[in-house]
Amino acid sequence: MPVLFDRLCLVGLGLIGASIALAAREAGLVNTIVAVDADEGVCRRVGELGLADEITADAAAGAAGADCVIMCVPVGAIGSVAAQLGPALKPGAILSDVGSVKGVVLREGGPHVPAGVHFIPAHPVAGTEYSGPDAGLARLFRNRWCILTPPEGTEQAALDRLADFWRAMGANVEFMGADHHDLVLAITSHVPHLIAYNIVGTAADLEAVTQSEVIKFSAGGFRDFTRIAASDPTMWRDVFLNNKDAVLEMLGRFNEDLSALQRMIRWGDGDGLHALFTRTRAIRRGIIASGQETDAPDFGRQPGNAPKDS
Amino acid sequence: MPVLFDRLCLVGLGLIGASIALAAREAGLVNTIVAVDADEGVCRRVGELGLADEITADAAAGAAGADCVIMCVPVGAIGSVAAQLGPALKPGAILSDVGSVKGVVLREGGPHVPAGVHFIPAHPVAGTEYSGPDAGLARLFRNRWCILTPPEGTEQAALDRLADFWRAMGANVEFMGADHHDLVLAITSHVPHLIAYNIVGTAADLEAVTQSEVIKFSAGGFRDFTRIAASDPTMWRDVFLNNKDAVLEMLGRFNEDLSALQRMIRWGDGDGLHALFTRTRAIRRGIIASGQETDAPDFGRQPGNAPKDS
Repeated sequence: MPVLFDRLCLVGLGLIGASIALAAREAGLVNTIVAVDADEGVCRRVGELGLADEITADAAAGAAGADCVIMCVPVGAIGSVAAQLGPALKPGAILSDVGSVKGVVLREGGPHVPAGVHFIPAHPVAGTEYSGPDAGLARLFRNRWCILTPPEGTEQAALDRLADFWRAMGANVEFMGADHHDLVLAITSHVPHLIAYNIVGTAADLEAVTQSEVIKFSAGGFRDFTRIAASDPTMWRDVFLNNKDAVLEMLGRFNEDLSALQRMIRWGDGDGLHALFTRTRAIRRGIIASGQETDAPDFGRQPGNAPKDS
Repeated sequence: MPVLFDRLCLVGLGLIGASIALAAREAGLVNTIVAVDADEGVCRRVGELGLADEITADAAAGAAGADCVIMCVPVGAIGSVAAQLGPALKPGAILSDVGSVKGVVLREGGPHVPAGVHFIPAHPVAGTEYSGPDAGLARLFRNRWCILTPPEGTEQAALDRLADFWRAMGANVEFMGADHHDLVLAITSHVPHLIAYNIVGTAADLEAVTQSEVIKFSAGGFRDFTRIAASDPTMWRDVFLNNKDAVLEMLGRFNEDLSALQRMIRWGDGDGLHALFTRTRAIRRGIIASGQETDAPDFGRQPGNAPKDS
């Protein structure tokens, strides 16, 4: 793979920033990686892990001279980060991000982007429940989708280059408008996280069922929810605050449907329940067929993959 | 391991029945396995897989002479199955089941149990999203909990023997009353399944987001829910119809909590969101520490475990 960016600047070296550093290095896509992080401990760890060639806490200094700058910070921080590094960007550079909400990135990042800089928000739909530079994985983006939401008038050559960068890290690339992105992700990611956080919270608060019982018998289904409810709290707070309309809309639909289910249970409508439970099986088959999910029983983690068995 | 039951009769050879057959055989816990299934195709497949020594569609014939009979059928069928085989049970035999609801098993199974037969409902909290005799796994119960809910006055020797049987298949055994079981499982298993089924249904019905988008971008969180929403429809219909009170109670709490979260989003209460999202992380740590969950990122299925990568 040819070098796509001589100098790549990553702002924020959490799970995603660290994974980009590892993946871009492994694929030989960049000559120099500059890491920017406001957290001193993260900077030290980035150095120990050898994730970058240069490390600084100063976003403007890190972005100066970069051919591509990717802001890997919670979406609530995009405005202030863009304000810090915007003036330092060189003409022809690409400025991007990895946030899970795209409308807010355009609105709050856009005004700080100087003329001549290509601003192309992006969202790699990939991750794990772990956070921080140690959570980085070179293979994180393989066979996952990365959605680019270029504003109108984006230069095609810059867009192609950023798409090539993601493809070279193993991702499939999709393009759409920011508003549509925010609606799609509200149902495929944001509301699922919200209800996972919610049921874990509900279970933690019960007086008639002990915490130890919740943990012991979690293999009955509950534990599946705890994975995404262990995701980074700051990132997710920012997602909900910044995709409010789409999340509330999708949550409204979820609630309506749940009320209908609740009513079926109360009135003993077995046929209605059976029909829904049959329909939902097909969706999983589609996800497995698309390569976005494993077909191994129980995600392949059981039997034999539990800590005690290994 | 010594033989615990000379003759074990399994009624219903789905995921759980087939797994018991495999596990009991592997551990040398029984001499003869009798398989009973009303479905001709299942009987044929049980024969092909070599899961049992004798196969019959007649529950009474299969149960006659057995030292232990385990009904591995949806809880809605317990009453009629117990009525069929009850009269055939020999004195001193143990009659058990594997249903996810226990109150209904006592109520509907109990009246058909002759004097001298030990009726001990059980619930192995283990499973996968697959169904049928081919889904059986000898290791399914290892390091998982099996809950026994003996009615008052159960003979200790019979209880010990059934507990030993489950332990010998790798399970940890817990004892509790049927009502408490139904409450605990409502929050750790039934409501999680219900909301998983619900969100998968909600996503399938959207007009502004295509099915293909839901599938493509499911790695953002949605796909975690599709696993349990692919579980057996008949089994789960029966769970909800037969644990109505506890499910509606826990669902009520879930809804209250979700309304509070919804309000935090609407009014921009970032601190409230962050506090909940931080608290829920601890629960997962407890589940991992207890050996009920893997600590591998993304359930260990990614990166590299997706079909395309393998």
